[in-house]
Amino acid sequence: MREIGIGVIGTGFMGKAHAIAYRAAPAIFSECPRTVLRLVADINSRAAEAMAAQFGFQRWSADWKTMLADDSVEVVSITTPNVVHREMALAAIAAGKHVHCEKPIAPNAADARAMMEAAEKAGCITQVGYNYIKNPLLKLAREMISGGELGEITGFRGIHAEDYMADPDIPYNWRVDPSGGGGAVADLGSHIVGMARFLLGPVAAIYADLETVVKTRPVASRAAERRAVLVDDIARLTVRFARGCRGSIEANWVATGRKMQLGFEVTGSKGALVFTQERLNEILHYKANGSGFVRIETGPAHPPYGLFCVAPGHQLGFNDLKTIEMAEFLCAVAGQSHQGPDFREAWEIQKIIDAAIRSSEEKCWIEVG
Amino acid sequence: MREIGIGVIGTGFMGKAHAIAYRAAPAIFSECPRTVLRLVADINSRAAEAMAAQFGFQRWSADWKTMLADDSVEVVSITTPNVVHREMALAAIAAGKHVHCEKPIAPNAADARAMMEAAEKAGCITQVGYNYIKNPLLKLAREMISGGELGEITGFRGIHAEDYMADPDIPYNWRVDPSGGGGAVADLGSHIVGMARFLLGPVAAIYADLETVVKTRPVASRAAERRAVLVDDIARLTVRFARGCRGSIEANWVATGRKMQLGFEVTGSKGALVFTQERLNEILHYKANGSGFVRIETGPAHPPYGLFCVAPGHQLGFNDLKTIEMAEFLCAVAGQSHQGPDFREAWEIQKIIDAAIRSSEEKCWIEVG
Amino acid sequence: MREIGIGVIGTGFMGKAHAIAYRAAPAIFSECPRTVLRLVADINSRAAEAMAAQFGFQRWSADWKTMLADDSVEVVSITTPNVVHREMALAAIAAGKHVHCEKPIAPNAADARAMMEAAEKAGCITQVGYNYIKNPLLKLAREMISGGELGEITGFRGIHAEDYMADPDIPYNWRVDPSGGGGAVADLGSHIVGMARFLLGPVAAIYADLETVVKTRPVASRAAERRAVLVDDIARLTVRFARGCRGSIEANWVATGRKMQLGFEVTGSKGALVFTQERLNEILHYKANGSGFVRIETGPAHPPYGLFCVAPGHQLGFNDLKTIEMAEFLCAVAGQSHQGPDFREAWEIQKIIDAAIRSSEEKCWIEVG
Amino acid sequence: MREIGIGVIGTGFMGKAHAIAYRAAPAIFSECPRTVLRLVADINSRAAEAMAAQFGFQRWSADWKTMLADDSVEVVSITTPNVVHREMALAAIAAGKHVHCEKPIAPNAADARAMMEAAEKAGCITQVGYNYIKNPLLKLAREMISGGELGEITGFRGIHAEDYMADPDIPYNWRVDPSGGGGAVADLGSHIVGMARFLLGPVAAIYADLETVVKTRPVASRAAERRAVLVDDIARLTVRFARGCRGSIEANWVATGRKMQLGFEVTGSKGALVFTQERLNEILHYKANGSGFVRIETGPAHPPYGLFCVAPGHQLGFNDLKTIEMAEFLCAVAGQSHQGPDFREAWEIQKIIDAAIRSSEEKCWIEVG
Repeated sequence: MREIGIGVIGTGFMGKAHAIAYRAAPAIFSECPRTVLRLVADINSRAAEAMAAQFGFQRWSADWKTMLADDSVEVVSITTPNVVHREMALAAIAAGKHVHCEKPIAPNAADARAMMEAAEKAGCITQVGYNYIKNPLLKLAREMISGGELGEITGFRGIHAEDYMADPDIPYNWRVDPSGGGGAVADLGSHIVGMARFLLGPVAAIYADLETVVKTRPVASRAAERRAVLVDDIARLTVRFARGCRGSIEANWVATGRKMQLGFEVTGSKGALVFTQERLNEILHYKANGSGFVRIETGPAHPPYGLFCVAPGHQLGFNDLKTIEMAEFLCAVAGQSHQGPDFREAWEIQKIIDAAIRSSEEKCWIEVG
Repeated sequence: MREIGIGVIGTGFMGKAHAIAYRAAPAIFSECPRTVLRLVADINSRAAEAMAAQFGFQRWSADWKTMLADDSVEVVSITTPNVVHREMALAAIAAGKHVHCEKPIAPNAADARAMMEAAEKAGCITQVGYNYIKNPLLKLAREMISGGELGEITGFRGIHAEDYMADPDIPYNWRVDPSGGGGAVADLGSHIVGMARFLLGPVAAIYADLETVVKTRPVASRAAERRAVLVDDIARLTVRFARGCRGSIEANWVATGRKMQLGFEVTGSKGALVFTQERLNEILHYKANGSGFVRIETGPAHPPYGLFCVAPGHQLGFNDLKTIEMAEFLCAVAGQSHQGPDFREAWEIQKIIDAAIRSSEEKCWIEVG
Repeated sequence: MREIGIGVIGTGFMGKAHAIAYRAAPAIFSECPRTVLRLVADINSRAAEAMAAQFGFQRWSADWKTMLADDSVEVVSITTPNVVHREMALAAIAAGKHVHCEKPIAPNAADARAMMEAAEKAGCITQVGYNYIKNPLLKLAREMISGGELGEITGFRGIHAEDYMADPDIPYNWRVDPSGGGGAVADLGSHIVGMARFLLGPVAAIYADLETVVKTRPVASRAAERRAVLVDDIARLTVRFARGCRGSIEANWVATGRKMQLGFEVTGSKGALVFTQERLNEILHYKANGSGFVRIETGPAHPPYGLFCVAPGHQLGFNDLKTIEMAEFLCAVAGQSHQGPDFREAWEIQKIIDAAIRSSEEKCWIEVG
Repeated sequence: MREIGIGVIGTGFMGKAHAIAYRAAPAIFSECPRTVLRLVADINSRAAEAMAAQFGFQRWSADWKTMLADDSVEVVSITTPNVVHREMALAAIAAGKHVHCEKPIAPNAADARAMMEAAEKAGCITQVGYNYIKNPLLKLAREMISGGELGEITGFRGIHAEDYMADPDIPYNWRVDPSGGGGAVADLGSHIVGMARFLLGPVAAIYADLETVVKTRPVASRAAERRAVLVDDIARLTVRFARGCRGSIEANWVATGRKMQLGFEVTGSKGALVFTQERLNEILHYKANGSGFVRIETGPAHPPYGLFCVAPGHQLGFNDLKTIEMAEFLCAVAGQSHQGPDFREAWEIQKIIDAAIRSSEEKCWIEVG
């Protein structure tokens, strides 16, 4: 069985999520290559050491570049803040690695394009962490839509709202710095935009209204001094899909009370689907002339659920979605078909984010290039 | 006890709903004047006669103008298609009646303004059938917002979606005729715009994208010939409220599967409220630093619920909302304070509808005059 | 059109609910006889007078017996505490009236039988206020069950839980007096037992465990002295239906937090139905080999919803259920078919309540006579 | 770091779930010992070989006894059908292993007791797979109850209903054989009985009604010959807890439409909690004099959720519950405190199942020994 050496850069939320998923993927998916956790790198060496011990990495380093020269590392996961994604990805690609990079892969489409072009030129397999679309019910939704079960699609309403930036006393950090994070439209908007593309295909044009609700934030925790915030807290988008239908999308990280309001209602001439990540193991389906919305619960009928559990009703969690993502990526690295999303898809998403920012500034519709 | 003579024009859905509510209001509300159903008018004389018999009107007529000269009729309800509202309302006002008119009161703001001015000049008490805001939970929501329980309001997301026009073979009718109905934005949009105003106050500016999904409809039932539809099926609005916050609003009458998706999520720095008319007897409230969304069920704590039922949990229905509306209107006619919405409020709503249509045509933000 | 004179005894919760429903029924149901509110009686003469004024009764009296000799009163509604139902009902029957009596009609099956026999002998049309089964969705449920859509019925789980007696400082009153109220099993249990019978037919045998949770209550509001409670707060029943299937039923009036948890899950070899009065306008239906539970929302497809409102999604409330009940009763009085539940059905229900009390005392299964 | 060698017997649903959890536990829980998957055994040698390859076991065997003599195996997981649990567990205990055994650990309390006594005598750490109580929200519920947040507990309503045996053509198998499975009361009832004990402590007495709905089953798939089923499909229990309150419990494996209706409503004088495994990441909490039921969503506030994910709203799945179970077990093996449930607890649960069976046969209350 093929064995793939893994390097992970970063030990935060996503660093750990990647490590968990790399460990789990080969056991859940029989066709997935075996993984060996070779190296974890973090600028904080104690964090790197602790994570190596806990997750079973063979080595750790305070210098991510160590990974580049290490031939036992075939795959590199980049889970650091957005602002350094480009440098790391380009170096990893140049070193002949396959690359997983967390979303958004870059602060703007130009950077994303450079990363995509480098990867494609090098024949590098890439993956981007748009994990929510790995839900078996989302695959079901996509199949139902493409198979015509909803008829002609007539509307889409998407949202990704959370409240982790709602408190005005959360200090200024990389998330609210235009050079790195790029606001709710980039951080959350990219998820729901990616989901919209996953379901309905390309977005042709966009009108956006971006708003900064918390206009200043403390320069540091409990600091009296405050700094102006330049990125959006809420983005309201009206979109036109290339297939013809239109929709609305909201990204919002000051949505008091919401922890994971990532969802959509997609409507067609013959039916509709309603989903929210708040109840990720169910989706509502309406069939025209049926008697009402049907609550479909995830089960073995929705691959790859059955690999996690042979009985229905047991439910997947977030880390399982990440495991599916990693299994698909590892399979692609081993030469099987690639499900994506890859850097090209991330670039497509980023173009829409860029268009949203420009539309809001120029107060006009922007065609997505 | 004061007694008020009632005349109703129209015998359709709303004609009946008015009659039911006029009958019920004095019994439910002890301070409400007694009502006497004097006259029902409908161009279809058999319908008028049948309704008189069923609902206990003293007289019926095929000519609504009969009502004008009848001194025993103090209040006139107009429940006919929008296109004739203006003529009827102006005549009733001129005849010294108080007037209830179904929404939208006019196909455009100019007409609405004329009606409002005539009424105000004449000292006529007016009421418009925005019944959903009569829900005790909506009053609670408004009080919570104005009382600061949600903190500073940071966002609004409103929708009114149904599917009664989703079938492309529904024939061309007054609803889709620009002279009368005015599309989903007018028919449904006016409800959710009115609700937004009820909760958050004036809308200052609007950007709208109106879309015609069903581009032609049969000229008549089962007719092969089809006629181009010029009004919207879906309206997607981005709005800026005068108080500073912004929001999005959708009106949609081709929303397959939805029968009454009229609702909102309003978010503030200290909390949030989530409501849908699909479950009109409950509202979700999130309090910052609380443990989650609380489901508040209607009960005697939410006036005037207790007048309908002394025990919680028994629930109000649609006709009860209409009864509250009529009771408030009749109380205003009898000289008590007026809750509205009156013709002035209807005009304010209509200005927003007009602005939405213009915004969509001109593809720019429109300040609401 | 036939006109029926109405007398109502009692001006409390149910007295008002009856008056509201008698006023509304003829307007909503075209085939329903017209009603004239002749007389309202209450031992509290001021309450009787006020209610007459508010609801439009022609006369009022502090003596309910006035009604008996009044030939203009054809129908008598008894909405007083249970303990006086028998005397009033027998007198009304003897006076040739048709009788509506609130539930439970008597403190025990013997009294209920006496009332039933008197009524049947006199040819008196009777009705009992088991209003919840008047929900169009309950009629749908019964039709689905009898039509075989669920296959062979394999189980029933019913509950009626509220919390109006949960506070141990609610004073001792008629509800907790064995001579009158009879505990949760009588007050709430009769509703869910009646609903079970409505759906599945006769109960053949019962095992019950009745429990008094609040063992003493103040003799009066804020009194220090407390009196032992002898009736149940919670009744847990295991039942065997005559048709063969079994089930469980709970009645509970100390169910903290619940205002109207009246519902059931009925399961068959081919499907299942789930209902709760907490969301009375929807019912869940599972069809074997379907994709999940379907949420059916009340609409014109479910008579007589369409008489209240021609469009789906608008929803019925509690008073509408009462209106359906009264319309059916009045139609029966006018010679149309009788839907019930009548005194005979109330007697059948009371036999089950009696059997539950006996079963709990004797700790054995009781065949329902 | 302490390292523990693992042996797993069985390669079915639970065999795989154990392997997944043993792999994940040390990475998620930093205090958990490292695991080495030494040996997997299955009578089907190809299944054992495949599972060894997929999950990374070092060795495999068709003979589970191989494990006994293998000193590198410190912990043995028994995931085979119930009927062989006793033999395997006693052998593993005798060989000095620590033992995890799937539930129910034995077909009756006598066997469970023998296993418990052997383990305790040998100082063997044991764990039983009652995974659902490992949900952080269940721990929260237990703490709220023991901390008095619900006041005095007044009632419990528990259920575990699924439909995997609803089809009457599912062949006769070990699940329906009294020597092994023991019916719904054993297979599902043990979960909800264990959950009830977890929340409220010992059950003192029980009244049960067990019912066989599908009276015969084919002797094999598609066989015409059918065999009588002697175990229950539905068990309806009335219980009295040692703490004084009472409740009802249902176990049902023919509950058409239900895939995981495992839940409860527990009510106290000051509040209530409502939970269903169908939405395992939320629990409803009612606080007396509050405004309604609060939906609490799992998050870092509910340990050990934060070890799986630092952000709220991301949700745990079934395999995560199993991982918590294994982490706790491994920590106990390494000398940390033991959370259970262990064989003693499994014996306590089995005594209640036995009492239920006896109660149903004898039609009387049974004190739980």
